[in-house]
Amino acid sequence: MIGYRFLLNLTIIEKEDIIEKRRKNMDKINTNPPSGTRDFLPSDLKFREEILTTTKQVFESFGFLPIKTPAFERIEVLTGKYGDEGEKLIFKILKRGKKELIKESDLALRYDFTVPLARVMVQYRDKLPKIFKRYQIGPVWRADRPSKGRFREFYQADIDIVGVSSLVADIEILLVFSKVLTRLGLQDFVIHLNSRKVLAGLMKVLDIPEQFHVDILTILDKFDKIGAKEMKGELLKSDISTKVAKNIIELFKLLDSDVSVISTLEDFLRLSPEGNMGLNEIKRIIKIVTLMMKEGTIVFSPFLARGLSYYNGPIFEIYYKGLTTSIASGGRYDNLIGMFSKKSIPACGGSLGIERIVLLLDKKRQNKRESSFSQVLVTVWNEDFLQDSLYLASELRNQGLLVETYLGEEDKIGKQLRYASDMKIPFVILFGPDEKDKNKVAIKNMQTSKQIILSRDKFTDFFRE
Amino acid sequence: MIGYRFLLNLTIIEKEDIIEKRRKNMDKINTNPPSGTRDFLPSDLKFREEILTTTKQVFESFGFLPIKTPAFERIEVLTGKYGDEGEKLIFKILKRGKKELIKESDLALRYDFTVPLARVMVQYRDKLPKIFKRYQIGPVWRADRPSKGRFREFYQADIDIVGVSSLVADIEILLVFSKVLTRLGLQDFVIHLNSRKVLAGLMKVLDIPEQFHVDILTILDKFDKIGAKEMKGELLKSDISTKVAKNIIELFKLLDSDVSVISTLEDFLRLSPEGNMGLNEIKRIIKIVTLMMKEGTIVFSPFLARGLSYYNGPIFEIYYKGLTTSIASGGRYDNLIGMFSKKSIPACGGSLGIERIVLLLDKKRQNKRESSFSQVLVTVWNEDFLQDSLYLASELRNQGLLVETYLGEEDKIGKQLRYASDMKIPFVILFGPDEKDKNKVAIKNMQTSKQIILSRDKFTDFFRE
Repeated sequence: MIGYRFLLNLTIIEKEDIIEKRRKNMDKINTNPPSGTRDFLPSDLKFREEILTTTKQVFESFGFLPIKTPAFERIEVLTGKYGDEGEKLIFKILKRGKKELIKESDLALRYDFTVPLARVMVQYRDKLPKIFKRYQIGPVWRADRPSKGRFREFYQADIDIVGVSSLVADIEILLVFSKVLTRLGLQDFVIHLNSRKVLAGLMKVLDIPEQFHVDILTILDKFDKIGAKEMKGELLKSDISTKVAKNIIELFKLLDSDVSVISTLEDFLRLSPEGNMGLNEIKRIIKIVTLMMKEGTIVFSPFLARGLSYYNGPIFEIYYKGLTTSIASGGRYDNLIGMFSKKSIPACGGSLGIERIVLLLDKKRQNKRESSFSQVLVTVWNEDFLQDSLYLASELRNQGLLVETYLGEEDKIGKQLRYASDMKIPFVILFGPDEKDKNKVAIKNMQTSKQIILSRDKFTDFFRE
Repeated sequence: MIGYRFLLNLTIIEKEDIIEKRRKNMDKINTNPPSGTRDFLPSDLKFREEILTTTKQVFESFGFLPIKTPAFERIEVLTGKYGDEGEKLIFKILKRGKKELIKESDLALRYDFTVPLARVMVQYRDKLPKIFKRYQIGPVWRADRPSKGRFREFYQADIDIVGVSSLVADIEILLVFSKVLTRLGLQDFVIHLNSRKVLAGLMKVLDIPEQFHVDILTILDKFDKIGAKEMKGELLKSDISTKVAKNIIELFKLLDSDVSVISTLEDFLRLSPEGNMGLNEIKRIIKIVTLMMKEGTIVFSPFLARGLSYYNGPIFEIYYKGLTTSIASGGRYDNLIGMFSKKSIPACGGSLGIERIVLLLDKKRQNKRESSFSQVLVTVWNEDFLQDSLYLASELRNQGLLVETYLGEEDKIGKQLRYASDMKIPFVILFGPDEKDKNKVAIKNMQTSKQIILSRDKFTDFFRE
């Protein structure tokens, strides 16, 4: 039909072979989802939604409230926020209507939930509570090169506490994530904790000029991935002096082999008040979180820097046994939320990597087969019995059951039973002339093949348990 | 911080005043959501999600399974599917990276859920059951001119039954929608039913040449909005002969004033087997749906045509008392789902207009104020008591309660109680040196201001009811 309408749209000048070629192109349309995106069929989607529901429940149990922002933002809201590399990954939307011809973009798909939160905080300042604990779960889009576990459309689950400068908020973020992971059955997680204040103290004591901070932090951050040797190479290649580079390497060697990292650093940071404060905060967080967490561990990780430069207090990444990439991350960023206004607003938060968590849990999962989720199939004896079958199904639904009526045209009962068996529907209701005469209903258990007969008025009692 | 990084990116040639101007522009960024989209704050979002959850539950209770497709599709999947007018409303995404310079688009935001379903049916043919009852709920995007109740990002809730040609499927779609509306408390709905076969029969008996069918159907479809007089004008203006136009007008006058529309049409369609079959289908649907529906009514609506040309069987629109636009619509379209393959696959389905339903229910709703959803606030006596308060909160959460710990820095208990009252949190837990000594917990009811003291071990029992 569509093909037909499509052909009608051609001008009559076009020749038969062009039409034929176009028809062939219609057939050849790539029906895969776009590169880096996925279609979720029922059983995978149900599995994902259970994970999202658990996550949501835990967020709400701590008093976090949901917000939802549009899939796209005005392009000027997003540009200049993600660095040069990030900027290239933004999906831009063309202007429409007459303006389509000038081929400019005015909108762009959201890249994360933090910039939209900053916009919301300005726009609805007076409607929102002073301490705003919000969560947002949903897809974000980045035009990254797709690879295993890396998608262009992927879900994030963000929590943020806006308006609180107390360390209690930083602690709560960690407790929420640890609770989510525990509830999902992912007990073997390790929280890596550091503080931007500690890193700032180190830069000061090591006498590294401010213009090199971002580069150095970027190199340090990769330590876990690239190891000491490669880190050394990168430091020596960078613009800092060889002496400073060697000092950094010495310190890191010391810390890497040390079991009492914190006290070693305390000595080292004696002369930096900021570094000292950072260390104290870390000690307090580790003490309380360790006592509160039922599963998982938390460790001080002096190499952790987190790429994004807007953090200014505690920062963290959560790793899972056997994975080299983090499954959650975040920290304090007191100057970010105020980006669209003149005020700075204290805030901390984090993001749960839903896609990696789904991958982890998917390996453990049993039943991956696509099938119906229905609990009962109500067969249809023939057209005259349709009304009766629809009633029976409706009564079962009122008991909270998931119920299908057989939809095929005038099919024999045998074929209807085979459908229930193919779809793994555990119970089948049979209601034909016999049952109608006796005012009874037959219920067949598809696993045991046993059939029982109950009175028409009380047959739903069977499903009570 | 962001502003700072932004400024750093400037070349040093730029003068101070340019920098100042840019800084001002940063302040002036429009923080409204993009035109035609909305931000949902907690209380509105909760309200929407309850409606979506009810809808989902009813869909699943009938055995419909969810799928999720990406927000965007390859552009060639969407083009040529929605007619010239629809095509203009598609949001197109620019190519990225080096290809951004050529300013072409390769992707586009989904416009509905039907075209993605057709793609999914081809792509996963072997993984999906032969009778596939799927639902999809989520946003779609159309660059329509925004107006009251019409958005550029809006939710649809679609159900479709693929692979069934029996009328039972058409009946089920109507029963599902009527159940959703009843469950949502929207009892005063009317289902308007017609059939493309009846319309085809009319075209034949009225002797209207095929090339005029689409135009005529479009005019008839507007009857309810424009009335008899304007319809007459439009028909006489169209390319059909005056005689045919007058015949149509005569027939419609007859039908409009007739209480026994169906028998009148039966006479009229005597010579069209297709028209007759359509009428019989309508009679059967109306009979069964009337018997099955607890609320609402279903009527034959011979003027209903539905704009989209792909329908080929029963078609319907659901109206609600006092609204002139429909809140749901759909029908049978046996040739649409097969658009990406050579096979035609029977299918019928419909779409629930979530936005209109939300607007309808929003008028009835009581509490629109933004507030916390927490049930209990656990106060923090001072820093030394933080650990205790975190434990108390955690125990309450394990009982399934929504619990906040007070996050402000070292605030007096009076201020903490005021926070609970502002946020309308009904219960407050107090645990200070007194309570700790006696191994007790104080619970304050914020509505009655009454306070009771319970033993530390059993205080959660209070919240059992």
